[in-house]
Amino acid sequence: MTPDVSANNAASAAKSAGSAVAKAGNAARAAAGSAAAKAGNAGRYVVGVDFGTLSGRALVVRVSDGAELGTAVHGFRHGVIDTALPATGRPLPPDWALQDPEDYREVLRHAVPEAVAQAGVDPQQVVGIGVDFTACTALAATADGTPLCEIGELRQRPHAYPKLWKHHAAQPQADRITDLAHARGERWIARYGGRISSEWQFAKALQLLEEDPEIYQRAQRWIEGTDWITWQLCGAETRNACTAGYKGIWQDGRYPSEEFLAELNPGFTGFTAKLEHPISALGSRAGGLTAQASSWTGLSPGIAVCVGNVDAHVTAPAAQAIAPGQMLLVMGTSTCHVMNGAKLAEVPGMCGVVDGGIIAGIWGYEAGQSGVGDIFAWYAAHGLPASYTERATARGISVHDLMTELAAEAPVGGHGLVALDWWSGNRSVLVDHHLSGVIIGLTLGSRPPEIYRALLESTAFGTRTIIDAFDRSGVPVTELVIAGGLLRNALLMQIYADVTGRPLSLIGSEQGPALGAAIHAAVAAGEYPDVTTAAQAMGRCERAVYQPDPAYEALYTEYTKLHDYFGRGQNAVMHRLREIRAKALDAR
Amino acid sequence: MTPDVSANNAASAAKSAGSAVAKAGNAARAAAGSAAAKAGNAGRYVVGVDFGTLSGRALVVRVSDGAELGTAVHGFRHGVIDTALPATGRPLPPDWALQDPEDYREVLRHAVPEAVAQAGVDPQQVVGIGVDFTACTALAATADGTPLCEIGELRQRPHAYPKLWKHHAAQPQADRITDLAHARGERWIARYGGRISSEWQFAKALQLLEEDPEIYQRAQRWIEGTDWITWQLCGAETRNACTAGYKGIWQDGRYPSEEFLAELNPGFTGFTAKLEHPISALGSRAGGLTAQASSWTGLSPGIAVCVGNVDAHVTAPAAQAIAPGQMLLVMGTSTCHVMNGAKLAEVPGMCGVVDGGIIAGIWGYEAGQSGVGDIFAWYAAHGLPASYTERATARGISVHDLMTELAAEAPVGGHGLVALDWWSGNRSVLVDHHLSGVIIGLTLGSRPPEIYRALLESTAFGTRTIIDAFDRSGVPVTELVIAGGLLRNALLMQIYADVTGRPLSLIGSEQGPALGAAIHAAVAAGEYPDVTTAAQAMGRCERAVYQPDPAYEALYTEYTKLHDYFGRGQNAVMHRLREIRAKALDAR
Repeated sequence: MTPDVSANNAASAAKSAGSAVAKAGNAARAAAGSAAAKAGNAGRYVVGVDFGTLSGRALVVRVSDGAELGTAVHGFRHGVIDTALPATGRPLPPDWALQDPEDYREVLRHAVPEAVAQAGVDPQQVVGIGVDFTACTALAATADGTPLCEIGELRQRPHAYPKLWKHHAAQPQADRITDLAHARGERWIARYGGRISSEWQFAKALQLLEEDPEIYQRAQRWIEGTDWITWQLCGAETRNACTAGYKGIWQDGRYPSEEFLAELNPGFTGFTAKLEHPISALGSRAGGLTAQASSWTGLSPGIAVCVGNVDAHVTAPAAQAIAPGQMLLVMGTSTCHVMNGAKLAEVPGMCGVVDGGIIAGIWGYEAGQSGVGDIFAWYAAHGLPASYTERATARGISVHDLMTELAAEAPVGGHGLVALDWWSGNRSVLVDHHLSGVIIGLTLGSRPPEIYRALLESTAFGTRTIIDAFDRSGVPVTELVIAGGLLRNALLMQIYADVTGRPLSLIGSEQGPALGAAIHAAVAAGEYPDVTTAAQAMGRCERAVYQPDPAYEALYTEYTKLHDYFGRGQNAVMHRLREIRAKALDAR
Repeated sequence: MTPDVSANNAASAAKSAGSAVAKAGNAARAAAGSAAAKAGNAGRYVVGVDFGTLSGRALVVRVSDGAELGTAVHGFRHGVIDTALPATGRPLPPDWALQDPEDYREVLRHAVPEAVAQAGVDPQQVVGIGVDFTACTALAATADGTPLCEIGELRQRPHAYPKLWKHHAAQPQADRITDLAHARGERWIARYGGRISSEWQFAKALQLLEEDPEIYQRAQRWIEGTDWITWQLCGAETRNACTAGYKGIWQDGRYPSEEFLAELNPGFTGFTAKLEHPISALGSRAGGLTAQASSWTGLSPGIAVCVGNVDAHVTAPAAQAIAPGQMLLVMGTSTCHVMNGAKLAEVPGMCGVVDGGIIAGIWGYEAGQSGVGDIFAWYAAHGLPASYTERATARGISVHDLMTELAAEAPVGGHGLVALDWWSGNRSVLVDHHLSGVIIGLTLGSRPPEIYRALLESTAFGTRTIIDAFDRSGVPVTELVIAGGLLRNALLMQIYADVTGRPLSLIGSEQGPALGAAIHAAVAAGEYPDVTTAAQAMGRCERAVYQPDPAYEALYTEYTKLHDYFGRGQNAVMHRLREIRAKALDAR
């Protein structure tokens, strides 16, 4: 199969020179173009738009084979609003993170036409558009989709703005939701690893109710960013299965009960009316592009608009990681693990399991590590002496490339170190964000490349711990497929293969989420019967690039012992250190 | 009392500007000189010579009040011989550390006359000389004191050279001595915290026997460097109570039995004949300066030569830290804790308890932390980003001064961190050099000044652990007296006061060991009836410079829990990490 061969070439290039991936892949696909033309959808294109934390990216993709022909990025003018509200200049409390929805529309106005122009395709040949978004990013809107923050007098009210995924000010509400769910024996709580996050829809909405009831009352809709921007494109509200399930506690065809809401706060009854709407399968058609959205994007009115999706989940078909057992790791500042499973199981510490959460008709599992690339970046910024930063500069490489090169020189275990990867807490499997990082084994002879390597390894041990939890719960993991910026680090990849004992496959695209959104758009446009079929033609993955050499069992045994000691209550020193810290800072 | 007042002034100056100490003290004492002249020993001087690891320092001190009038340092030409023997160029095995005894004599030839010249005193007015030395630094000699390495054909034999304190190649022998002592129920083993060090006389001698029996047989004497250089000064062999007790297992008037030696190795019987000699009290007269030593030093032949002593122990009278309960901490790369106790007790994990080991007639206790300043230096060299090193350079201060200043800004516990100070293992109270360092509580928000402070605190927690062991064993510690370079760090001092809950006093001299040797020389010369009286006149200490504010109990509780978890076998992960490391490096 020509597309697979070209994907292999692309991914091979990724191993030695990551930035060459997309270009190599595209070149191979361009050569294969005439063959693909015979498939019947030659000359037709789709656009995927990936909304990140600070910017949005549009990608123009050929329907026949997934070739990436043009891309453009547009930054959010307001970025993350976390210090003061621009409309008033008044400071925001700690842990707040808002955005301005007009910034999302601007991506449609700028990035989409620029990407189409760069691709050199006729806009008329674009047959569909789809988006993915950060999640849970939720906003209050009127019945017609107008964000409350765009209504004159409400512009000065922080609660009228979209709350970005990393708005963490609803922790008390989240804790109450979790506790009450356990107290009442709600069946759905086990589908979220036993804990509802402060990032999710119900916690954020309950905070809204309790802190600004007027805004809460005026919010006829409480909607995810991904569904809202889709509404802006097609003029019709939809609710996608992914965010409804993972972020909205929609399970077995319903939201939490009125009794549950009333017990949380009597004023919270009726909340789910702000969410209620038929749930759409991923890859289905939300509607046709409106005239207004056509004028923004330069695309033809009436073309297919796909229902919304989430950045990590949408990447699974782009990476051809959709069969049960194929776990996709989107590895960046943090890692998101998504995988389809043949059956429903309750995996301790998972983020969620949702029917059709990744691919319609199958159970989609999600887990995560809250700090991965973030930890390496922290060390590079705050732990590396000048001798290393200067060496990297002199050689014109990044400090990460230098440290990786130096770290690779030693044999496994040669550093005598083991670390716990909890600099940003632990999402899975402990679901405890008040845990913190540890390094053990330091001596006067310990050197930065050794510490750097111990940090790389610690995140691999974290992933292995997640995989073990899935395995033990009857959801076997047979292969890891890697997407995200960290796949360029060959040492890191080999460590993950060795630590997990699984072969590592690599996505063959540098724009996994946008490619995934485009694949879904192609299905919504009727170009493929379903996402699985579209993924075979348009996704790309090189299989088993890294083969495991299980050399880490002894170190992983030490990690696990320390993981359980510090993470499962035997010594809650990390919690107590936080309490000591909070008291000390309060007393100042 | 005039001397005490001036000492107070000197130590006050030490708090704000450490390097000014000696000068300020001397100025005050010069002013007090005419008053002291009435005491009867005006115009009489003594010389203390401090033999360190890389150099020797001579200090000229006025007998009447301890004023420091001149000093000079002479570096050892061969330094530490730890890579190859100069006589052959042949490499030495790992963990070896030798010296050349001629380097010691060179200190007498150069540093002593230079110090006397700098002091501007008439050499005829010098009435005594005394030394202190690193220990255990032991050498093989003939019956007349000739080091075997100075006998032509033996110059090429590594075992013929003095083995420096940090020669660690006798670990297997040390382990056998410890194990056999416990197996036989030797009473003396409890006086060494249950463990004989590889650094000490018996371990080094057993290694000599087993690796070069010919040198062992030709060694008529096996002698400490401090006793050997004293022999060079006065022409007569002596053995001081300090090294005999702490390093030579001389307890209750005898060495380990012939049966014990025979069981270690039949060839080791008779070993103690190489040590046997009457034991001299510290501060007693070893003899008169020989004509040859007079020609080296420029001092008058026949003046009193004091028996040898050890750098840490000799400092106690210089710091006026000799009453029971006054614990002297000599704080540098490592910390040595010495204290007199009113009675004999077995303190778990102490290095040793010796009758007259610090002051004749009283039990002297020793404990230690194997890494202190070393850990801070490691962090400064291998953990500090350029932004900090550049800032320190721009301000013309050391990185330690900068980090201390920044670390002082936060309240106690504000960093959320706790560390175990075992980068160089743990001497007291765990006596386990295969332990290693730990940092717990790291987050993406952790910054270098916070980590630096956690490292400072960890060493204070280590000292508190030692103090608690003494207290619990019925040897109360009521006051800490600090000597050594780290006393200049006011934040560190306050942390030690707060963590230990004890007032901190500071020695009023920058040359504590050399001043201590000079004090002992004054006693040997008959200027004072005993060391305690001499210390009152010549030593200096500012009392209770730092008062404790017990704010660290919560953090110390966490330290202790982790100390016991990692250090007492509950999780021997540090030992296993070393084993994993050793295997990994061997397999390369």
